[in-house]
Amino acid sequence: MSKTLELARHLETLHINDMYKTDFYWTWDKTDDEIDAIFTVADALRDLRERNKSTRIFDSGLGISLFRDNSTRTRFSFASACNLLGLEEQVLDEKKSQIAHGETVRETANMVSFMADVIGIRDDMYIGEGHKYQKTFMDALEEGYRDGILEQRPTLVNLQCDVDHPTQCMADMLHVIHYFGGVENLKGKKVAMTWAYSPSYGKPLSVPQGVIGLFTRFGMDVTLAHPEGYDVMPEVEAIARQNCEKYGSRFHKTNDMKEAFRDADIVYPKSWAPFAAMEERTKLYAKGDQAGIDALEKKLLAQNAEHKDWACTEEMMKLTRDGKALYMHCLPADITGLSCEEGEVDNSVFDRYIVPLYKQASYKPYIIAAMIFMSQVKDPVRTLMAMDEGDGKRKSF
Amino acid sequence: MSKTLELARHLETLHINDMYKTDFYWTWDKTDDEIDAIFTVADALRDLRERNKSTRIFDSGLGISLFRDNSTRTRFSFASACNLLGLEEQVLDEKKSQIAHGETVRETANMVSFMADVIGIRDDMYIGEGHKYQKTFMDALEEGYRDGILEQRPTLVNLQCDVDHPTQCMADMLHVIHYFGGVENLKGKKVAMTWAYSPSYGKPLSVPQGVIGLFTRFGMDVTLAHPEGYDVMPEVEAIARQNCEKYGSRFHKTNDMKEAFRDADIVYPKSWAPFAAMEERTKLYAKGDQAGIDALEKKLLAQNAEHKDWACTEEMMKLTRDGKALYMHCLPADITGLSCEEGEVDNSVFDRYIVPLYKQASYKPYIIAAMIFMSQVKDPVRTLMAMDEGDGKRKSF
Amino acid sequence: MSKTLELARHLETLHINDMYKTDFYWTWDKTDDEIDAIFTVADALRDLRERNKSTRIFDSGLGISLFRDNSTRTRFSFASACNLLGLEEQVLDEKKSQIAHGETVRETANMVSFMADVIGIRDDMYIGEGHKYQKTFMDALEEGYRDGILEQRPTLVNLQCDVDHPTQCMADMLHVIHYFGGVENLKGKKVAMTWAYSPSYGKPLSVPQGVIGLFTRFGMDVTLAHPEGYDVMPEVEAIARQNCEKYGSRFHKTNDMKEAFRDADIVYPKSWAPFAAMEERTKLYAKGDQAGIDALEKKLLAQNAEHKDWACTEEMMKLTRDGKALYMHCLPADITGLSCEEGEVDNSVFDRYIVPLYKQASYKPYIIAAMIFMSQVKDPVRTLMAMDEGDGKRKSF
Repeated sequence: MSKTLELARHLETLHINDMYKTDFYWTWDKTDDEIDAIFTVADALRDLRERNKSTRIFDSGLGISLFRDNSTRTRFSFASACNLLGLEEQVLDEKKSQIAHGETVRETANMVSFMADVIGIRDDMYIGEGHKYQKTFMDALEEGYRDGILEQRPTLVNLQCDVDHPTQCMADMLHVIHYFGGVENLKGKKVAMTWAYSPSYGKPLSVPQGVIGLFTRFGMDVTLAHPEGYDVMPEVEAIARQNCEKYGSRFHKTNDMKEAFRDADIVYPKSWAPFAAMEERTKLYAKGDQAGIDALEKKLLAQNAEHKDWACTEEMMKLTRDGKALYMHCLPADITGLSCEEGEVDNSVFDRYIVPLYKQASYKPYIIAAMIFMSQVKDPVRTLMAMDEGDGKRKSF
Repeated sequence: MSKTLELARHLETLHINDMYKTDFYWTWDKTDDEIDAIFTVADALRDLRERNKSTRIFDSGLGISLFRDNSTRTRFSFASACNLLGLEEQVLDEKKSQIAHGETVRETANMVSFMADVIGIRDDMYIGEGHKYQKTFMDALEEGYRDGILEQRPTLVNLQCDVDHPTQCMADMLHVIHYFGGVENLKGKKVAMTWAYSPSYGKPLSVPQGVIGLFTRFGMDVTLAHPEGYDVMPEVEAIARQNCEKYGSRFHKTNDMKEAFRDADIVYPKSWAPFAAMEERTKLYAKGDQAGIDALEKKLLAQNAEHKDWACTEEMMKLTRDGKALYMHCLPADITGLSCEEGEVDNSVFDRYIVPLYKQASYKPYIIAAMIFMSQVKDPVRTLMAMDEGDGKRKSF
Repeated sequence: MSKTLELARHLETLHINDMYKTDFYWTWDKTDDEIDAIFTVADALRDLRERNKSTRIFDSGLGISLFRDNSTRTRFSFASACNLLGLEEQVLDEKKSQIAHGETVRETANMVSFMADVIGIRDDMYIGEGHKYQKTFMDALEEGYRDGILEQRPTLVNLQCDVDHPTQCMADMLHVIHYFGGVENLKGKKVAMTWAYSPSYGKPLSVPQGVIGLFTRFGMDVTLAHPEGYDVMPEVEAIARQNCEKYGSRFHKTNDMKEAFRDADIVYPKSWAPFAAMEERTKLYAKGDQAGIDALEKKLLAQNAEHKDWACTEEMMKLTRDGKALYMHCLPADITGLSCEEGEVDNSVFDRYIVPLYKQASYKPYIIAAMIFMSQVKDPVRTLMAMDEGDGKRKSF
């Protein structure tokens, strides 16, 4: 029996009927079965591709990507996922487009979606705005479909908002599952999601938030560590805490990086900006107060600089379980002595983990493809089976 | 009988042999049967897509788009149309390309077209230049094909020039046809194509020109209203007048917006720049006279500001037939109190017509696809029938 | 027997097994049979396309292009070649991406390649850096594939480096082969690869280097002419000299343009920068010494200006064999009186050769497609035969 067939049979046991034609905003919107389904389909699509099976489900159609922040890896992951399923990526670039000319989101959303099956949006910079933008965009499409303007109702893949980064954290989790040999081995594993110093300022909070919101669903012992004042959104902490009750996980906060690293099985040290400062920045941007923005940046950089000791050094790594915790990062990292003078991680640590880090990243296109697949395919079990048995090849010769 | 089959049979009655391998510059170059054919094929492609039928005619091939002015909706419409038929869009971006390095149009045209089947050009800013540029580009390709440089002769879709905006006005007209329940119901309907105030300056004339050139072919009563000095190109007015004789339409000019709106069935209020000023601007640009351009801009903005009362307000709408004329706009509109302080249309009017406005826009990708289809497919009737009956699906699962 | 079948049978006689899964850096890395194979497949793909045969070998997959210098024609050639074979082009644009944020080449290479089959890189500006960058990029992918990060090992098409410009020079050569009616007619033909004055500064050396490295493999008499101080890389001159021994060609250097043009069958006059100056510039860029760069530019422009007599004028053309040498250029050329006051070539000369010049360019997409084909298809002979006989059409209707 092929791996895909095995995965399809597992998929058959899950309650996933509600995913068809829905959007993927946050992992905590989704049931356990739905999360499982994404992992299962991601693995199946990867298996099919490895075996040179065609996974095209679209003969034509567009996947629209909208990046309100720079991106290489997420953009290529989205483009790859679209291409794998037969969609052509079209980038909605604010510089090329007329959005800057004062178009409303509602109008733009409809105007680009006449032949769009999938929308991917990254909007992570403004606390309180990123998710709202995605919601406004998709509500407009829902309305457009209902009113007969659109022939199809495109579905959303959240490519990062201010609250969650589901494609990243799902890829992270699938990497963890395979690294530890299965979901069943994760119970009790200690995860250190910790802040780390970076010379840059204002990195989004969606990765730490996404990690504590997702990893606490797997019976893990999640420690969130950061200097005082670098708190994440309280709503997401609340979700992590709720997960603990439901899944027998632990969620613990500390201002001591060492405490987090001690005996950790997984460490995920990365920089982010303080939530309160990001809220303030959003308001300053809304007011167009450039002087205020500059002053805030200066203040935040100075504040960051007080915490240069928050770094994933060789010494810190020795504190972890057998000194061999799995080091994770969403990339690109600020690497001490390589990409900056002082950063998130020692060059020697980073270098030792390059292969697992790149493997971690390699799941993202498949996670995105699985999200598209589950929201676009009515009978995913039958479809996987048909692809598995079919003659369609990715490379014909 | 399917709708597509019905449309294919209607197509069979039309004289359309001359469309194969030709360019689409202006609607008035085309016979009535050819215009009819575009509408018919647009409706058929939409029906096929709604029924999940594959409409791919290309296995490979490029659709080149060249925008010499910013664009979201037209760019996405062109990309969507290409994708629907199996072509991959490639954007010829002057910033990325070497055009700025002094390449001649002739050379560029050939260099990007070795595997291009379709060319879409938008060049609307310079009176007397936009059409000329498109013509030069396509003449170069004709020559390149004749000389054996190109294996195929790409065909043009004019995505807006200084004279006409055929993809817009054809989409507008198809919307009108469906809104009023068929071509046969348009006779005598009053259309108010009127200027409206906008805080911006220098909007192209191709929409009002395209509308008066096309709508006068359907027995309609077309009123062109604008303040003194905002005349459109006399050549296009001449075409509108000739149409009146041929089609029993009426074409009437006024400097009174109210007169235009009174008892109108359709109102199309939008800003444009005075023809004479645009000619002057073209010359200033050619000379590189930035001081002159700035002075002209200032003068035109002041001139515009004298006509702030030219707005599609609720009061104005009451003048129309039963107060319920169909409000049209090519989008994006300058909406009073939403996108600007004082603009083309009241927010409440605009908002009431959002669904028809978006539907109007939704025809554009199909109109473009139909233009490509008619210029690329040798036997369009048989092809539509084959797609209608075939097993090819847009979404396979 | 179709032309493609004939070409496939010729391909069968060549030793080409080593091309599968390899990169194309420099023509002199490749055996004579391998070079022959590229020409043969390019001609076959063109024949298949002319006969409306589908040449898709990919159902999905990306061709990544990375241009570290502006480009229109090479970018479109690469996009066309990818599209012809079924790959979607994705541009890795440093402005859009996070490369500027300090990512290492190794990381970027892997991050964009999870679903990439082909990589095209243009990096021609920095002597000693362009090839190194491509090598680093591809070594990273080799490693990524070996480590199980990538499911497939993408192959490189060098779209121009500091050393060679193989897609250009192979297209040039295929043009020459067809122009003179076959490889067998090239023996003893005199080629003048000469420097020419251009008002711009710092053009890459990869074209003259590529030409002397490739054309000397065909028994031709290659003269490299330039003013004193405009030498090309000595390593490439050494290759040209080695070719002479092996292929019975001649390679001759002169500082006299007339000597080069005298009785030439082919003239290829174009500007390039002095090798030593380019080395200096690379160092200045590495140091970020803008003042030094500006001073160097000034010096080089002044130095260039001393050689305005190095131009392909009508008088110069009269020196060539019967005054009718084949004029070649990689385009765009600096044309005296058209694109600049004084440049590489007289307008009347350039204009007389426009058709052959455009034909020369038209081979590039097919050369690139052939390079991709030979590195991606395991059994190219059988594949060409299958395409030749198959029902697959490029345009279905």
